[in-house]
Amino acid sequence: MNLSRYLPVLQWSWRYNRQQAGSDLVAALIVTVMLIPQSLAYALLAGLPAQIGLYASILPLVVYALFGTSRTLSVGPVAVASLMTAAALAPLAQAGSAEYIVGAVVLALMSGLMLVLMGVLRLGFLANFLSHPVISGFITASGIVIAASQLKHVFGITGSGHNLFDIGRSLWASASSINLATLAVGVSTLVFLVLARTRLKPGLLALGVAPQMADVATKTAPILAVVLTTLAAWFWQLQLQGVKLVGHVPSGLPQLTWPQADWALWQQLAVSALLISVVGFVESISVGQTLAAKRRQRIDPDQELIGLGAANLGSGISGGMPVTGGFSRSVVNFDAGAETPAAGIYTAVGIAVATLFLTPAIAWLPQATLAATIIVAVSTLIDIPALRRTLRYSRTDFGAMLATIVLTLGHSVEAGIITGVALSLGLFLYRTSRPHCAVVGRVPGSEHFRNVLRHKVDVCPTVTFLRVDESLYFANARFLEETVLDIVTSEPQLTDLVLVCPAVNLVDASALESLEAINERLKDAGVRLHMSDVKGPVMDRLKRTEFCQHLSGDVFLSAHEGWKALVTGAKNDDL
Amino acid sequence: MNLSRYLPVLQWSWRYNRQQAGSDLVAALIVTVMLIPQSLAYALLAGLPAQIGLYASILPLVVYALFGTSRTLSVGPVAVASLMTAAALAPLAQAGSAEYIVGAVVLALMSGLMLVLMGVLRLGFLANFLSHPVISGFITASGIVIAASQLKHVFGITGSGHNLFDIGRSLWASASSINLATLAVGVSTLVFLVLARTRLKPGLLALGVAPQMADVATKTAPILAVVLTTLAAWFWQLQLQGVKLVGHVPSGLPQLTWPQADWALWQQLAVSALLISVVGFVESISVGQTLAAKRRQRIDPDQELIGLGAANLGSGISGGMPVTGGFSRSVVNFDAGAETPAAGIYTAVGIAVATLFLTPAIAWLPQATLAATIIVAVSTLIDIPALRRTLRYSRTDFGAMLATIVLTLGHSVEAGIITGVALSLGLFLYRTSRPHCAVVGRVPGSEHFRNVLRHKVDVCPTVTFLRVDESLYFANARFLEETVLDIVTSEPQLTDLVLVCPAVNLVDASALESLEAINERLKDAGVRLHMSDVKGPVMDRLKRTEFCQHLSGDVFLSAHEGWKALVTGAKNDDL
Repeated sequence: MNLSRYLPVLQWSWRYNRQQAGSDLVAALIVTVMLIPQSLAYALLAGLPAQIGLYASILPLVVYALFGTSRTLSVGPVAVASLMTAAALAPLAQAGSAEYIVGAVVLALMSGLMLVLMGVLRLGFLANFLSHPVISGFITASGIVIAASQLKHVFGITGSGHNLFDIGRSLWASASSINLATLAVGVSTLVFLVLARTRLKPGLLALGVAPQMADVATKTAPILAVVLTTLAAWFWQLQLQGVKLVGHVPSGLPQLTWPQADWALWQQLAVSALLISVVGFVESISVGQTLAAKRRQRIDPDQELIGLGAANLGSGISGGMPVTGGFSRSVVNFDAGAETPAAGIYTAVGIAVATLFLTPAIAWLPQATLAATIIVAVSTLIDIPALRRTLRYSRTDFGAMLATIVLTLGHSVEAGIITGVALSLGLFLYRTSRPHCAVVGRVPGSEHFRNVLRHKVDVCPTVTFLRVDESLYFANARFLEETVLDIVTSEPQLTDLVLVCPAVNLVDASALESLEAINERLKDAGVRLHMSDVKGPVMDRLKRTEFCQHLSGDVFLSAHEGWKALVTGAKNDDL
Repeated sequence: MNLSRYLPVLQWSWRYNRQQAGSDLVAALIVTVMLIPQSLAYALLAGLPAQIGLYASILPLVVYALFGTSRTLSVGPVAVASLMTAAALAPLAQAGSAEYIVGAVVLALMSGLMLVLMGVLRLGFLANFLSHPVISGFITASGIVIAASQLKHVFGITGSGHNLFDIGRSLWASASSINLATLAVGVSTLVFLVLARTRLKPGLLALGVAPQMADVATKTAPILAVVLTTLAAWFWQLQLQGVKLVGHVPSGLPQLTWPQADWALWQQLAVSALLISVVGFVESISVGQTLAAKRRQRIDPDQELIGLGAANLGSGISGGMPVTGGFSRSVVNFDAGAETPAAGIYTAVGIAVATLFLTPAIAWLPQATLAATIIVAVSTLIDIPALRRTLRYSRTDFGAMLATIVLTLGHSVEAGIITGVALSLGLFLYRTSRPHCAVVGRVPGSEHFRNVLRHKVDVCPTVTFLRVDESLYFANARFLEETVLDIVTSEPQLTDLVLVCPAVNLVDASALESLEAINERLKDAGVRLHMSDVKGPVMDRLKRTEFCQHLSGDVFLSAHEGWKALVTGAKNDDL
């Protein structure tokens, strides 16, 4: 039972049947057809030789099928992680060089180790540091950077850089050397893919094809583009026109190895590996949960960390690159009817077959085709309405989102995500550092207490009731001190202050110190401090300290009890 | 009016009278006597020539008197900031060298700029990042490191390092060369100061001296030690016995200059300057608020940032070192009767006079005396009971505290404080990432809903009421998704889920996305999502989005309304 928790394959494999195998095989076939061009394209995007993308689509899928909890997640190279890989490796080595390839392997291994460690230590909550506006802004901006970085392949010019400025500058510098044959291949592929996306599905639906199958057929358009342009390149010998092809790809399955990398390289790539891990995990878990919910299945986030981590370790030892659960492929896998992770294993077999037998054909594949595939694929990542939605909903969240986008576009993916995280933490702290506090008074003739600014209530000039509408912890402890001292300095007649705490779920050690300080300062100023409506668990904790002995006043069960004791002076008359 | 907000001196100076001037002068005299040895000692601790300490005790005090809001804070060099200065500069230059002195000036200027900027932008809340256990652990550990670093002066041996390992190793290495004359001076000063602290006050009280004056007299013991050991060094020519003296100190007031430092130095010191600023601010504001509260005065934290920042800028342009409000001196200033910041100006005059006329005498002051002064002064920073108190109160807070202490002692002050901040943020996020949620049911025959696990309540197998006891934001958005999906997968009969939100004060953009996702996933699973008890401001925000249109269910005013509509099926019968 416990073993199957850590090895979810045991939960489904013992009752795996022929019907499930049939469904899984169909889904795997469709996903394989989709994954071949994607894995080549994302390797290109990451600055790696094409076969690395294939390698990252074999062992990781098998490993995830053993350790992952999602039934339908399709693991492999994805766009954002590939861009982050390229950005991390660019300062270290020439793209495609032996050191560069070792760097990609180290990134995959280190991401894998980090994810497994986070899973074992149950640190999945750390992914919460990435607030939704930050991740959404980051993915939009990454999509734009990725699309821009692929333009050079479409135009047949040279280019470099990992932000819009650098990419734009380098494109501009070589704009005069556009290769028309390449442009023809690139643009026609783009047009074909866009039409397939926008027109094919309605057409198929009109022909009476089931909506889900029409969707799946649309998603296989890229492989058709790949086949057609490969044939064209071979037939017309397009390389003679200056069209860059993928070129020789070593055939055969990847070898299992451990990279020859020195410790300094691991250290240099640590931050990048962490960011790739966390971003990949967040991307993957949200796809996984969306799909699982549709069938009322469960995903265990901590085990998912282990599953994704193991997949990355598998990618690393088989010479691949960082992998994660891809959005569009997983949806296709789901829609095509995959029922168990076995579909992933069949997909891995499909890719392995391609690696063994299709590499001579892949050599003829124009890079412009792959670039067009990437551009169309990432265009779905760009979510401009989310910006408007966030702006309308919350300006602070929008601020964090905008900063993430601007820095990702204008500086680098790492600067973007780090700034976004820092800013959303800072803004959150700012927001909670001023909790809602209200001076309350008694609703005449009742036991209820309401805000004096909003209601006609009884008040007493020597006793102030202050209600705190938030847990007290380090972020707002100082604010409470300031609020209380403000009240004391502005009301010279004051002799008693009651903190009304019905919404205080937590008092941490910082807030306890603040309460002690408030108590001491009020004592110095000749004011007694009381508390009321303290929740049970909070009171239990306070009783472990000397605070209750130090408290100059009393702890009342309710504000009304306090009112009776301090204002009407009839402590026990009617209870 | 507005001007006086930014220049608080205008609030008190126009009605400054003879009686106040008298009180301020007395306090200033006592503080000056206390500050002379402290400023020399803290310069020594920071690895700087003695006069730098004096320089940092002139202009900064005048500037703070103009811009600060505390009436009684005594600004100048303090122990922890001096240690942090030494730790920041040690990797860059030889202690006492010209580059080292420039580095100290750059630290003061940059801290000043950062504090002023934080004040102008009202970023005082950023100091909240330093939770109480972290700052308390940090100050205790710093006190221990400072005391250890001064032992070499007491023993007359050489030593170096900014953590306990390095200090211990270097002391051990030179332990054989103890200078007995130095040891005699150091130990006798230590014994004298400890006796003054523990016995003098009771003695004076027994003689009928007023408690406050007895306190003040006790605090002037260090100057007596300084005078006596200086006379002894001069009379017996102790330098011939190997006792290290302060040596030649240039007399005369500091010159106003801007340091000749290149941009790289500013960059290298930026993180250190930020840490010194924030730690100094936190230390200073807590003293200031404690003292202000005793007289029902107010401190404006954002203006305090400007005041402290301006003081540091003043220190920097007059060749000083980072300064902040010192705890013990401020208490003495307060107890001695200081009524306005003018006392600070008089103290500055006193130090200026000392700088002009006392430097020939200071040259004879043994370094062992200053070291003993530091050791006794920082012993008050070491707060071991706080560890026990925090452990008893909260293990998570204690964890952050312990990590801060261990890293400060064992590695460096900067590693200590950064780890502490990161850990307390992480722990806080962990704590709030799992808010209290309870499935509730109706108390029979009433409109109240209570936790099904704790109370005998009515429930309905097809409708679940889930109460959320925390604001919803990025840290816990994912947890809510998981909780809801858990309920849905474990209850196959479910058709309706009601989120009961009386304690939800905020729904940020991440949580909104989660609610949207929950709504979609429940829809896919055939379950309608409802909400109830949504607070007014939260509802106003939600109405700005399309969430309410997307919501598959209804928004009820209360859980009871939901119960009537969904369970008893009598939506509008008795309302």
